[in-house]
Amino acid sequence: MKGGDGPYSYTKNSYYQAVATSAVKKMIDEAIAKNLDIKHSSYTPNTFRIADHGCSVGPNTFIAVHNIITAVELKYQSEGLNSSIPEFQVFFNDHTANDFNTLFTSLPLERRYFATGVPGSFHGRLFPEASLNFVHSSYALQWLSTVPKEVVDKNSPAWNPGKIHYSIATNEVAKAYSAQFAKDMATFLNARSQELVCGGMLALMMPGLPNGSPHSQSSVAKLFDLLGSSLMDMAKMGLFTEAKVDSFNLPLYTASPQEMVGLVERNGCFCIEKIELVDISVKQANAPNAQSCIMHLRAGMGGIIGEHFGNEIIDELFDRYSKKLEESSFLLDSYQKGKQLFVFLKRK
Amino acid sequence: MKGGDGPYSYTKNSYYQAVATSAVKKMIDEAIAKNLDIKHSSYTPNTFRIADHGCSVGPNTFIAVHNIITAVELKYQSEGLNSSIPEFQVFFNDHTANDFNTLFTSLPLERRYFATGVPGSFHGRLFPEASLNFVHSSYALQWLSTVPKEVVDKNSPAWNPGKIHYSIATNEVAKAYSAQFAKDMATFLNARSQELVCGGMLALMMPGLPNGSPHSQSSVAKLFDLLGSSLMDMAKMGLFTEAKVDSFNLPLYTASPQEMVGLVERNGCFCIEKIELVDISVKQANAPNAQSCIMHLRAGMGGIIGEHFGNEIIDELFDRYSKKLEESSFLLDSYQKGKQLFVFLKRK
Repeated sequence: MKGGDGPYSYTKNSYYQAVATSAVKKMIDEAIAKNLDIKHSSYTPNTFRIADHGCSVGPNTFIAVHNIITAVELKYQSEGLNSSIPEFQVFFNDHTANDFNTLFTSLPLERRYFATGVPGSFHGRLFPEASLNFVHSSYALQWLSTVPKEVVDKNSPAWNPGKIHYSIATNEVAKAYSAQFAKDMATFLNARSQELVCGGMLALMMPGLPNGSPHSQSSVAKLFDLLGSSLMDMAKMGLFTEAKVDSFNLPLYTASPQEMVGLVERNGCFCIEKIELVDISVKQANAPNAQSCIMHLRAGMGGIIGEHFGNEIIDELFDRYSKKLEESSFLLDSYQKGKQLFVFLKRK
Repeated sequence: MKGGDGPYSYTKNSYYQAVATSAVKKMIDEAIAKNLDIKHSSYTPNTFRIADHGCSVGPNTFIAVHNIITAVELKYQSEGLNSSIPEFQVFFNDHTANDFNTLFTSLPLERRYFATGVPGSFHGRLFPEASLNFVHSSYALQWLSTVPKEVVDKNSPAWNPGKIHYSIATNEVAKAYSAQFAKDMATFLNARSQELVCGGMLALMMPGLPNGSPHSQSSVAKLFDLLGSSLMDMAKMGLFTEAKVDSFNLPLYTASPQEMVGLVERNGCFCIEKIELVDISVKQANAPNAQSCIMHLRAGMGGIIGEHFGNEIIDELFDRYSKKLEESSFLLDSYQKGKQLFVFLKRK
């Protein structure tokens, strides 16, 4: 994600995630009310520890954490245990290259928790054994830890030339992406299963695909198709080679509820409290326009594209992309109405 | 402290602190071997939590933490409890403005602990109740949380015009500094007493003054006197007003063992295991020269001086200071031979 607070920063272009955070608030509230076992709580002496994986630089992570803490407090109050409300310690986690300086300076001044930052990949261990009570991650797990190597290998049946994503590609490409997502979820769930206490909770949110839908129906398929064709146009103009596009693929995946259920069951350490698709309805009055969709995509993907093609092409790429998007308003519709996958698990 | 890794950064100019870290290693090793109560350890389930206050950006904090962990492991091994060695979680703490991005990217790759960063002042609570096993702070507590207001108040008997420190000033000025240090230690010890588990340990290192010595004998007195007179020279040349110098004082204090004993006893929550002065002998072969002393001072104080006088004066100030220092080699001697105050406490 783009750090700092400039016009292309994540801070200024995370409206969509904010809407989603608000939409799942009620679901997390209910899940905490139902699943938080106050009487047999295993936090000692009296600390409730929360980790947010993929926190970026705020403000969405602060809102999500505030919601979780409020729901835990409510549960105590509803059982007449006001005086037993624990202290909260929050661990904000993201890649080491995340802009933690910006995160720390934007921490809410009036907060009811002790704040810490944790640098490192959530595909490995980040915390001591049985030290967390609640793990949250919003819009992070759709990022694969790496592009599946087959899709950039000319000699593989999963080679994906001229395209930058699996969603409108061959079955072999989709299978390679799906296998990588399965590996990533395995390492993620394995680490979290060690770090969470028994009864600890895990809430995940990411883009989702209805069971049985073809990948080409994913809300991002057409967006990425147009981005890929903008890159190909630039290659044809000689700004870089077509081979440069062939070797670039976006490490992003959209899973279905069924697929997620399979991966959680394969791990075996969690009870599934809820795995379902959610419609994030953006109110018409607040609906983002094409320009803000593009700013959002640029904030999320400008970095990874710049690394591969060079930062000097980014302005032109997003200008071209912007024109293509304007010509096809249906894309905006699909973007606004994307399905979201909500996952709520409890450590056995 | 100056962040990043440029020529005036703390990273590149913390040689003196590194020597001190190495000198106290043996003392901390012994204190851990003596005081760590493995049988009745109150860390659950099996995590040993360490905080370093005033961590800056490394590398000294990494060395200090490594030493502490090694000493704890040795204690387990010496009692034949290899298989019970806990996991370690380390909390690197410094001001919110500290360069945590640099700290995180310089974390040792081969580390035996889970790393976290904690932004905020150590004069308040930073951690949940009874959540830490070991607190360390090296060369941070000599920094006062604020300049005592009397010393910049024209109507106070503690007004300190034309000087930038109490060490060669009137008794009233020294008293105001001493009172501020007492307040700061009170808030520091109060917060730590809540955060440490029973039996938890607290190791502090800072510049120290022998009992009964006048403040003017402090190793930094003459260094600060020359820095102040360099500023006055520049004021007389019209680069800024003398009033600007009058309103500037360095928020640094050097305490005696006796003074520290009094403050710890006033807090009442800690047993004093050791409070004593240490000679940090810098081997002749590795002795810093005048230039590196100046770089060290500039890394530590350039920021605070720049804030008051403007960054544009820093180069000239340290040029002038450098010339004054060259003329008085005894200063270098005193700098190299400064006494250090080592404090080792155990939470009752």
